[in-house]
Amino acid sequence: MRFLVFYIFLTFSSSLFSQSIIDNSAKIIRSSLEESKGYEWLRELCEIGPRLSGSEESYKAIEWAVEKMKSIGYDTVWLQPVMVPKWVRGNREECSVSEGTDKGKTLSINALGGSIGTDDAGITAPVMEVRNFAELENRKEEAKGKIVFFSRPMDKGLVPTFTAYGGAVDQRSRGAIEAARYGAVGMVMRSITTKYDNNPHVGQMRYNDSLPKIPAAALGYLDSDYLSEAIKKDPSLKLNIKLSARSYPDTLSYNVIGDLKGSDFPDEIVIVSGHFDSWDLGCGAHDDGAPCLQAMEVIDLLKRLNISTKRTIRCILYINEENGVMGGREYGRYADTTSEKHVAAIESDRGAFTPLGFTVDADSLIIKKMQSFLPILESASINWIKKGGSGVDISFIKTAKALIGYYPDPQRYFDFHHSANDTFDAVHPREMQLGTAAIAILAYLLSEEGL
Amino acid sequence: MRFLVFYIFLTFSSSLFSQSIIDNSAKIIRSSLEESKGYEWLRELCEIGPRLSGSEESYKAIEWAVEKMKSIGYDTVWLQPVMVPKWVRGNREECSVSEGTDKGKTLSINALGGSIGTDDAGITAPVMEVRNFAELENRKEEAKGKIVFFSRPMDKGLVPTFTAYGGAVDQRSRGAIEAARYGAVGMVMRSITTKYDNNPHVGQMRYNDSLPKIPAAALGYLDSDYLSEAIKKDPSLKLNIKLSARSYPDTLSYNVIGDLKGSDFPDEIVIVSGHFDSWDLGCGAHDDGAPCLQAMEVIDLLKRLNISTKRTIRCILYINEENGVMGGREYGRYADTTSEKHVAAIESDRGAFTPLGFTVDADSLIIKKMQSFLPILESASINWIKKGGSGVDISFIKTAKALIGYYPDPQRYFDFHHSANDTFDAVHPREMQLGTAAIAILAYLLSEEGL
Repeated sequence: MRFLVFYIFLTFSSSLFSQSIIDNSAKIIRSSLEESKGYEWLRELCEIGPRLSGSEESYKAIEWAVEKMKSIGYDTVWLQPVMVPKWVRGNREECSVSEGTDKGKTLSINALGGSIGTDDAGITAPVMEVRNFAELENRKEEAKGKIVFFSRPMDKGLVPTFTAYGGAVDQRSRGAIEAARYGAVGMVMRSITTKYDNNPHVGQMRYNDSLPKIPAAALGYLDSDYLSEAIKKDPSLKLNIKLSARSYPDTLSYNVIGDLKGSDFPDEIVIVSGHFDSWDLGCGAHDDGAPCLQAMEVIDLLKRLNISTKRTIRCILYINEENGVMGGREYGRYADTTSEKHVAAIESDRGAFTPLGFTVDADSLIIKKMQSFLPILESASINWIKKGGSGVDISFIKTAKALIGYYPDPQRYFDFHHSANDTFDAVHPREMQLGTAAIAILAYLLSEEGL
Repeated sequence: MRFLVFYIFLTFSSSLFSQSIIDNSAKIIRSSLEESKGYEWLRELCEIGPRLSGSEESYKAIEWAVEKMKSIGYDTVWLQPVMVPKWVRGNREECSVSEGTDKGKTLSINALGGSIGTDDAGITAPVMEVRNFAELENRKEEAKGKIVFFSRPMDKGLVPTFTAYGGAVDQRSRGAIEAARYGAVGMVMRSITTKYDNNPHVGQMRYNDSLPKIPAAALGYLDSDYLSEAIKKDPSLKLNIKLSARSYPDTLSYNVIGDLKGSDFPDEIVIVSGHFDSWDLGCGAHDDGAPCLQAMEVIDLLKRLNISTKRTIRCILYINEENGVMGGREYGRYADTTSEKHVAAIESDRGAFTPLGFTVDADSLIIKKMQSFLPILESASINWIKKGGSGVDISFIKTAKALIGYYPDPQRYFDFHHSANDTFDAVHPREMQLGTAAIAILAYLLSEEGL
């Protein structure tokens, strides 16, 4: 019985796919794992530093990527100009207890992206802890003159960590608006993370132009626990917060775009992509350095294995996903007007962990066709293809038949996300390279089979 | 369309399973992730130290487990006596270049389990590097008086790391026999690992009583690279190896066995298990401490959620998997003679990483029935159930309808396996606890649905 099942499986896969597709897919997996090129590139990229839009390091990284693509032998490499916001954290980020029994105690703090700074004296105020906006509204009279402390953690009981993140992130994106609405002078929040250490996890926040702008920052998870306990014991406790963050005028940056021309349908495009900017803590290894290099290595894999593709494989490293998505929007405008046909776009922006599946924004017949690729993709640890969100940047490519998000194991991503923890050594070479192989095989199948 | 698919799925799962099974499974996942009890137990267990059969720490750990099971409220806890081999590494493990340009350089070395030691002067001999036994046989005249160095690494191009391990492990298990056959005085080997550091990875080796017993040890991966280069440049290089390892007479130890009695069929048994012994480097966190605590927490989860089971859930912590499998054999003898019926046995011995699936040794109808559990198990990140090997210890339970191996993500396991790297901080709480939930739900379904 065992042999019968095995035989049926072999017949099934070979009847659907040519032997060269089966063989090339196996070669892609082996070469990706054996040579670990993307992982070694990540070492180089992380040495440049984090890549916040408009930062010196972001330009160095862009130059590095162009040179790397040229050295690989991409058929074309070009820089697509994009105007991006420029926000700078500066050198000063301090938070201390300025009144109360623990006077002088310092807390681990980082400004949220987009926050204003303070003057040299900083803001000094008592703290009002709330779990959510409803509680803030119910207790709105208390907020005036306070620093509002949003303390709701991620729901650790949820298996899909991205859902848990989604359930907590309103505190970061809208917290300063809601706090300012009721007269608060500042906003701090518990870091959104699954790692219970003291490195703050940041990310973009927003202001409402009709309300005062107040400084906004993330506290380390452990210091959030401390603060919560401390103000219960001593409600008169005051925090002093000093931040040097500021915004500058928008500045010119670039998407990096490189092609491997298709042999039969060069104007039909299959995109592999990630966003090249990162936050300015750590080095953006999982978010989204390694995923960019996975995309970049797809073309290197095809070239080093002498695999030609019917359709054009295009690698896009988007700029500015973190605080504006200007790169994604710009490419979307290009996609709207070009005569090229976008068959499909894959984005990898959930870290470089062991592959689990792909989530696809497409109609059900397209998804069904893609699911027929599973007998090939399973050998690269892809277990499923299902309907779901794709990626922020590629969502602007309206004409693509399928927008595809790469979905690796999500259990550890928020240990690192947007924090000083997101460094080179947080990425495991086999996990990253197996993901590269999965993405490369999917791009190759999309190119050869079409949609 | 999206809603239709969702509706069909709900109907499908609820038609197969009672609402209480669906609800209890969801509770198991949430409670396991939120409370992280097994992970906190692992912290305690690792503080005791590694648990090599017959070691002082192994007895302390057994006592600790008995107390923990009693405090959880297991219905019965008993110690099953098992005679186990006792091997002790001792304090002295040294390897140095004793002749050649690098004279005095030390290499990172650990004796393989079961190896004899050396006298105080150690063995001093030139080195013969081979990749496999065929090469050794071809060059057998060269082996006399040498230290044979087996240098074939794991095949990193393979996705299933356990297969790659299987392709390299003959060097460890039979290397000393084959080297001694041709007159070698010692054997060293490249560590079998996916982590390119210098901590040796050990494991059990064997002797053949009709051949001389020679000392056998693993070198760090990086020092294996060094040695390979060094003897190419200087074939007269000699190594000196001093090992204090020795074997003692077999000694009494125990399997720890605890039950949660079934309400309807108390004599029908569903086993959850791991092996409680470990190697003596690191603390055996992934191999197999965390998996033992996953098994132990299954009953804690059921009890704290007030979930009664129709069949008896039995947690077994086997002793001596690493160097003798005496615990597995002993329970197998018990299973042969008891009037209890063994429905199924689950063993977790592939680390505590994110769940992927279960491999099942059973006939195809049983596997098909188990696959019908997938709509429930998918919420605990189980993607598949398929035919495959189960676990070394449970393989002796001949009457069970299904022998089941838990299969988590295998990409990182051999970074830690049998080395000083296998410590508490190598285990991620969410990965471990999600695995606990997957195993608990499978055990619960096996209890309620039978096979």
